[in-house]
Amino acid sequence: MDLLVHLRRNAKYYPDKLAVSDRETKITWAEFDRRAFRLAASLSQLGLKKGDRVGVLMSNGYRYLEAYYALPRLGAIIVPLNTRYAPAEFAFVLNDCAATALLIEDTFLPLYEKFGPRLETVQTLVFTSKTASYAPEGMLDYEGLIADSPGAAFFQDVRSEPDDTVGLFYTGGTTGRSKGVMLSHKNLIANALNSAAVSDISTRTVYCHVAPMFHIADASSIVTYTMMGACHTFLPRFDAVQALETIQRERVSHIGLVPTMINLLVQVPTIKDYDLSSLKLIFSGGSPTPVEVLRKFRQLLPCKLRQGYGMTEASPGVTTLDWETLLRAVDAPPDSPESRIMLSCGIPGTNVEIRILNDQGEEIRPGEIGEIVARGPNIMKGYWNLPEETARVLRDGWYYTGDLATIDEENFVYIVDRKKDMIISGGENIYSAEVENALYAHPAVLEAAVIGVPDQKWGERVHAVIVLKPGYEATEDELVKVCREQISGYKIPRSLEFLPEMPKSGAGKILKRNLREKYWQPGLRQVN
Amino acid sequence: MDLLVHLRRNAKYYPDKLAVSDRETKITWAEFDRRAFRLAASLSQLGLKKGDRVGVLMSNGYRYLEAYYALPRLGAIIVPLNTRYAPAEFAFVLNDCAATALLIEDTFLPLYEKFGPRLETVQTLVFTSKTASYAPEGMLDYEGLIADSPGAAFFQDVRSEPDDTVGLFYTGGTTGRSKGVMLSHKNLIANALNSAAVSDISTRTVYCHVAPMFHIADASSIVTYTMMGACHTFLPRFDAVQALETIQRERVSHIGLVPTMINLLVQVPTIKDYDLSSLKLIFSGGSPTPVEVLRKFRQLLPCKLRQGYGMTEASPGVTTLDWETLLRAVDAPPDSPESRIMLSCGIPGTNVEIRILNDQGEEIRPGEIGEIVARGPNIMKGYWNLPEETARVLRDGWYYTGDLATIDEENFVYIVDRKKDMIISGGENIYSAEVENALYAHPAVLEAAVIGVPDQKWGERVHAVIVLKPGYEATEDELVKVCREQISGYKIPRSLEFLPEMPKSGAGKILKRNLREKYWQPGLRQVN
Repeated sequence: MDLLVHLRRNAKYYPDKLAVSDRETKITWAEFDRRAFRLAASLSQLGLKKGDRVGVLMSNGYRYLEAYYALPRLGAIIVPLNTRYAPAEFAFVLNDCAATALLIEDTFLPLYEKFGPRLETVQTLVFTSKTASYAPEGMLDYEGLIADSPGAAFFQDVRSEPDDTVGLFYTGGTTGRSKGVMLSHKNLIANALNSAAVSDISTRTVYCHVAPMFHIADASSIVTYTMMGACHTFLPRFDAVQALETIQRERVSHIGLVPTMINLLVQVPTIKDYDLSSLKLIFSGGSPTPVEVLRKFRQLLPCKLRQGYGMTEASPGVTTLDWETLLRAVDAPPDSPESRIMLSCGIPGTNVEIRILNDQGEEIRPGEIGEIVARGPNIMKGYWNLPEETARVLRDGWYYTGDLATIDEENFVYIVDRKKDMIISGGENIYSAEVENALYAHPAVLEAAVIGVPDQKWGERVHAVIVLKPGYEATEDELVKVCREQISGYKIPRSLEFLPEMPKSGAGKILKRNLREKYWQPGLRQVN
Repeated sequence: MDLLVHLRRNAKYYPDKLAVSDRETKITWAEFDRRAFRLAASLSQLGLKKGDRVGVLMSNGYRYLEAYYALPRLGAIIVPLNTRYAPAEFAFVLNDCAATALLIEDTFLPLYEKFGPRLETVQTLVFTSKTASYAPEGMLDYEGLIADSPGAAFFQDVRSEPDDTVGLFYTGGTTGRSKGVMLSHKNLIANALNSAAVSDISTRTVYCHVAPMFHIADASSIVTYTMMGACHTFLPRFDAVQALETIQRERVSHIGLVPTMINLLVQVPTIKDYDLSSLKLIFSGGSPTPVEVLRKFRQLLPCKLRQGYGMTEASPGVTTLDWETLLRAVDAPPDSPESRIMLSCGIPGTNVEIRILNDQGEEIRPGEIGEIVARGPNIMKGYWNLPEETARVLRDGWYYTGDLATIDEENFVYIVDRKKDMIISGGENIYSAEVENALYAHPAVLEAAVIGVPDQKWGERVHAVIVLKPGYEATEDELVKVCREQISGYKIPRSLEFLPEMPKSGAGKILKRNLREKYWQPGLRQVN
């Protein structure tokens, strides 16, 4: 059981069906398989071997998809890089996993100028481009590697075991240190099967990758839709009008969007001018979809919506809320228990078990709050080179998510808070500790607490609460500037607030819930 | 990952949805879970423990379903018994696996009279009945065990590992000796996930168990449909009119039938009087569906048909042919390559790999014939207590099916012959060696060769070719009688043929293919 089984199956039994349809670019499964094989053979010839880590810094497109399947052919581990990283973050991740090769798209070369000199282990650079035809000095050309591959005479697919690592997916940590989540063939296929069981996918399905392909939300769809022999299409970045155009042009059937994007989609004034009849399913995560958006969705889009909760460590699906239940909630009287289900992230996926435990380790009852722990074949192997962090979260077969949740009488799950202090803004995960660390770099900052507050457009936005040192001063602009030097743009606080002192617990811990109170509706913090 | 995850998930998240709907009998998932738990607790109290084997001799009904989930709760291994076994076969199987308990339905008590005395290890007898309320002397009452269960104070579910054996599914052997196929949680769930990925199953699905629940064909559906929270309904035995009534009454959406049954269904003159609008999918195996039946099917039934090839050792799915491809074949000009696909058993399932190897161990090319070998998480752990037989068929991760197949230019698979000399008659597997052994018991028989020949009603029927000893005589009736004493009724030859001598290979092996020639169309033997 490994990812290549799916690729070989498609190449053998659906050779002429489309793997990729992206405007003029049409690639059949036979051709896709051939390209991925030839790339793998070339990389093998260059000395890459089983277990080597390979960074990928590319925008959404078919070459990214090829990389996801070429690297397992040699048993190499893909390390998809967040395109919005700051230079220090690129350097940290690639050095942390001691990557020996990097696949990089031309648009990221200016970024590479900044982090390249800091890399300690990368020896092979492979250049890709959607427009240029030659690689710059010192880089190998992606298409050249495919064209000049030694081929089957010199290479054959490396045999992988179900527990072999396919990829390292770096995720922010509570301490600000990014951790490489090791996901195996078994993990990714388990999640794909749970998704496929509820998604009605076939070779006639067209999936549109609009979520970034470095993110587990999309990486998981790569596996699911390839497993079922579906066709892939791409949007390099989300734009509501372009999304509608793509759905119409490519006859897209399934797409993954965060609620922010769904909202933008249904707001497009000309939406009714598009033929969206091919659309069957939108799935969504990160936060619940607001009821007004759901109502518009139902009016304007011919498809189902499924929302869920998960995280990189779970490959990523933990819970899911189906369309029929969501619709019942939309149609229920406001403020009824059934209407409240709209704010739920649903119930565990097909082969996922969850428990929600109070501080005594007992399962909570409806209305109580506890930590979600999850078990299943989709749960990660562990964190790269971090046995202690791994042992802390993987205990007795259960993954301790660090997220707080409650349940209603029907056992629907509601996320109350992220123990990890994670903010989800426009689908991106932002760890408050990382932003706080950046703020502390300013000499005037005594205490910094970063929280997510509701935002019409982004679901949540990054909000910083600051206590200055006595006698010191600092402006918002100065604090934003000090952040910009250290962390990605999307992590920088969008709003700041100065307080004379922080609300604290008896033990002296900053009470972030108190800070959030004035921004959020009474009761639940409505994210999932 | 074990079967109980599904049961607990249904009980917790779909407590009020129906697990069972069978005329007046309606059992919710909460109640079903409670009953299976209480039965398990009672059996545990009686001394049954992890790893113990428990025979089940029951007709289709909800108690059989309960047994499939109660036994894993204590880690006991279910041994589903073919209800058509001869007494000697019951005794062999239960002694072979050293079963310590037997669940038996009242209708099988006359049979038990015959094999009971030969049992060596069975100590606990549990009696079930669809009508009577008291167990006979020396037997425990199934409903009594549920009613008087010690409950949660004295029992909790045993933790199972993915590789723990769920059931021993006995299958005829080439030597006439039945072998217990050990299927694990991982095996059965892998098959269920492959099925669910292509079947669109939800809690709104109603599945009708008409194939016998002791057979892997139905046991696998038990897992698939329970995993997805679907509702179960039952037919104790196939009858075309009753099947139509059940579909209408229970609003059946999915049903598994062999082609013989499909044929009988579409032949019912009053078929149009039934409301069959709930029906979405019929799946089928054992042999291809004849084209005239397919044409009638499409006219009369509102659903899809999927056919496949498999065996107990693969839990059981190996290949599958989808409805769209089948329809294309039906609509293609007769004798065109596309039309021929109707005779195919399709392509490998989602996470199944196959190779078709010639005698040199190389993959065959289109038109050539080789042995199908299969790999995947659905392949059995091995045969019970038969390490040598296991090692013979499980090699380097591949299962050697013993079945011969060819492929066309599109890689569709066509079963040419069963190396194991298996005959599939009305969906039952019959091993010719077993029937031959029975025939050899007659003193006049010099040589016996049993083959499958085409049969309008049963797909194949058992046909015996006999060479008598010089100077001896035997009538058909005598030979049938000698069989009846030893083997199940459905295995007894339906036709016999006497030859002066057998066609043989240079090595002296009987050439069964030559014997079959006059019965089958030139070219392929059309079974799958």
